Amino acid sequence: MFAVEGKDIHQCPEGWLPVYVDKEQQLGVMSIAFLLDGKDDAVVWRGPKKTAMIKQFLSDVVWRDIDYLIIDTPPGTSDEHLSVIDNLKAYNPDGAILVTSPQAVAVGDVVRELTFCKKTHIPIIGLIENMSGFVCPHCTECTNVFSKGGGESLAKKYHIPFLGSIPLDPQLTQCLEEGKSFLEHCKSSPTVTALNKVIEKLILVDRDFL
Amino acid sequence: MFAVEGKDIHQCPEGWLPVYVDKEQQLGVMSIAFLLDGKDDAVVWRGPKKTAMIKQFLSDVVWRDIDYLIIDTPPGTSDEHLSVIDNLKAYNPDGAILVTSPQAVAVGDVVRELTFCKKTHIPIIGLIENMSGFVCPHCTECTNVFSKGGGESLAKKYHIPFLGSIPLDPQLTQCLEEGKSFLEHCKSSPTVTALNKVIEKLILVDRDFL
Repeated sequence: MFAVEGKDIHQCPEGWLPVYVDKEQQLGVMSIAFLLDGKDDAVVWRGPKKTAMIKQFLSDVVWRDIDYLIIDTPPGTSDEHLSVIDNLKAYNPDGAILVTSPQAVAVGDVVRELTFCKKTHIPIIGLIENMSGFVCPHCTECTNVFSKGGGESLAKKYHIPFLGSIPLDPQLTQCLEEGKSFLEHCKSSPTVTALNKVIEKLILVDRDFL
Repeated sequence: MFAVEGKDIHQCPEGWLPVYVDKEQQLGVMSIAFLLDGKDDAVVWRGPKKTAMIKQFLSDVVWRDIDYLIIDTPPGTSDEHLSVIDNLKAYNPDGAILVTSPQAVAVGDVVRELTFCKKTHIPIIGLIENMSGFVCPHCTECTNVFSKGGGESLAKKYHIPFLGSIPLDPQLTQCLEEGKSFLEHCKSSPTVTALNKVIEKLILVDRDFL
């Protein structure tokens, strides 16, 4: 997605350097993919090895003085999530951003994620509804491909901030496939407007935290 | 999805009875959800506990003389997948059905799943491309919401059977939300035609195995 596939991790005396997406080194990425021989290699690891890797990514990478550290976890409430929380606790993380799609089966999963955050005392920054409706590029009519409004009603029910709905846009996938910035190349897309609104809200939430 | 939420597991002298979806008891379901107190409870388990549960679902459930046992795994190549394979090996399973969506990031994940199947000597029955295009219900024009053809070219590249492409249909989500059978209620949907083709191919593959 960031067009960094195949890049190598470099070592410095302090540890691993993340792979930077931009020349200004404002956006750094760390992934297990950089440590594998081939991009088709499967990482066949049980929990303890994953836990050790997550710990290393937090402690042995030279993150420098960053404004945001975003950890993208898989769905579920298992080893990865427990390890991230265990290792981040000392740094007092802002909290979790929950992402759902609108249909009931997805919302059900995210409610369990919410229960998990409460159990582990992780604050919830807010909830995003992704894949929220599709505007046909041919007739501009909107269809709710995966039902509608599940994210917003979940946020209301559990009194957590609703950060916004992101509609589907085929141009997003296209930009990701071509390693282009969607925010820059498709400025007129309603999905870009929606993403920018979410970002603004997140920055506001962040200010409230300070 | 099967409208069995909240149902209870019953015990018989031989073990647990699965929850049956139909009166004729042709379709039985087993899920950890049936064993929890509330539907919002999170299962906060590390690998070993998940492994023990998977083993129990295979050995302690009275599955009777069934034609097909389908295990729906999460994405990835970790504890769940290793445990399923460890515990199924003795029963000589037909193999794995891989499901991808068409875009490159999803296909990349499924290639790693394929590498995993090869490493663990699990035959591959075939590959399905899901979320493959969307026919607008207003103007009937087709849009490839998540790129196009990634599944089919992957199948060709790795010489595995391609079982078919399933287009997006908002009626599918709607039927699932309402607990109705999509195959029965939306017979004219191209998605139903596509699903039936996949099922036919799977039954043929199954005959070849016998």
